[in-house]
Amino acid sequence: IIVFDEECFQGRRHEFTSECCNVMEFGFETVRSLRVESGAWVGYEHASYQGQQFVLERGEYPQCDAFGGSNAYHIERLTSFRPIACANHRECRMTIYERENFLGRKGELSDDYPSLQAMGWCNNEVGSLRIHSGAFVCYQYPGYRGYQYIMECDRHCGEYKHFREFGSHCQTPQIQSIRRIQQ
Amino acid sequence: IIVFDEECFQGRRHEFTSECCNVMEFGFETVRSLRVESGAWVGYEHASYQGQQFVLERGEYPQCDAFGGSNAYHIERLTSFRPIACANHRECRMTIYERENFLGRKGELSDDYPSLQAMGWCNNEVGSLRIHSGAFVCYQYPGYRGYQYIMECDRHCGEYKHFREFGSHCQTPQIQSIRRIQQ
Repeated sequence: IIVFDEECFQGRRHEFTSECCNVMEFGFETVRSLRVESGAWVGYEHASYQGQQFVLERGEYPQCDAFGGSNAYHIERLTSFRPIACANHRECRMTIYERENFLGRKGELSDDYPSLQAMGWCNNEVGSLRIHSGAFVCYQYPGYRGYQYIMECDRHCGEYKHFREFGSHCQTPQIQSIRRIQQ
Repeated sequence: IIVFDEECFQGRRHEFTSECCNVMEFGFETVRSLRVESGAWVGYEHASYQGQQFVLERGEYPQCDAFGGSNAYHIERLTSFRPIACANHRECRMTIYERENFLGRKGELSDDYPSLQAMGWCNNEVGSLRIHSGAFVCYQYPGYRGYQYIMECDRHCGEYKHFREFGSHCQTPQIQSIRRIQQ
């Protein structure tokens, strides 16, 4: 991943091949554009992998609005980031549960779902979930919009038993679209 | 599709089962929340299917930011919308071309691609494209972000030979992610 402190790949530039806990330690005030040259990464609003999170796949992001997580909650800040190790799994498999602690009705997912309701999930919420293999990104709204939650089999033992474990910025169990993360 | 003139499904309410050329004719100043109960729809910023466009799939959109097209170009307005008829195709197939008028290198797509570059497209642009069956949504940035262009086999005879035909708001051929639209 190559990050720049000005828009359109201008200004100070730094290339990373592994995680960065705080880009300010490299003299950056913030990141205003970036290019992902290989792998899949997750970016965080704050240092030490805190705050809003958003998936970064291969390609060009010429301004903050291109990588920010959501329309509703504007991100002006990308302060830490790391590669998603399990994005190189060939198979992604997860189970979603209606209620917290893996209770209630459940659904098995192994594909991309721009609308969970269209695939038969009768709810705009997911109470808890288990990642059996690979990595997924869950979104607040249909069509891969709104808050993002990156969920990995290598983190939390793949278990997310309450919406507060979805991410440090998560305030509701509202999840309406889910897709796999692959390199 | 059920639209409301206030956020969170409050205020004036109207249910549509087919296209709406101008929601103002139904007494709406604008749409501030909506629920898609079946099918896939495309919403437009302005009346008569003009301006920014964005795909609307089954689920709940409690505020404008939930359905707006992109972070970069804030939509405060949804004025017309229509169902995407060919979203009920079981198969979606398209060809992308490096240059306008179906010239240059090409790629065949029949799946979802959060990063065209990750699948081997060495460019952040698509010069022209043909939809052979079904419907797709193309996005300016990786990970289904930025401007949206809804591309259908039933429109333009499925042929989009220059970026100006991608949508009335399209200013560049920049396309970095593409996915199918299905009901």
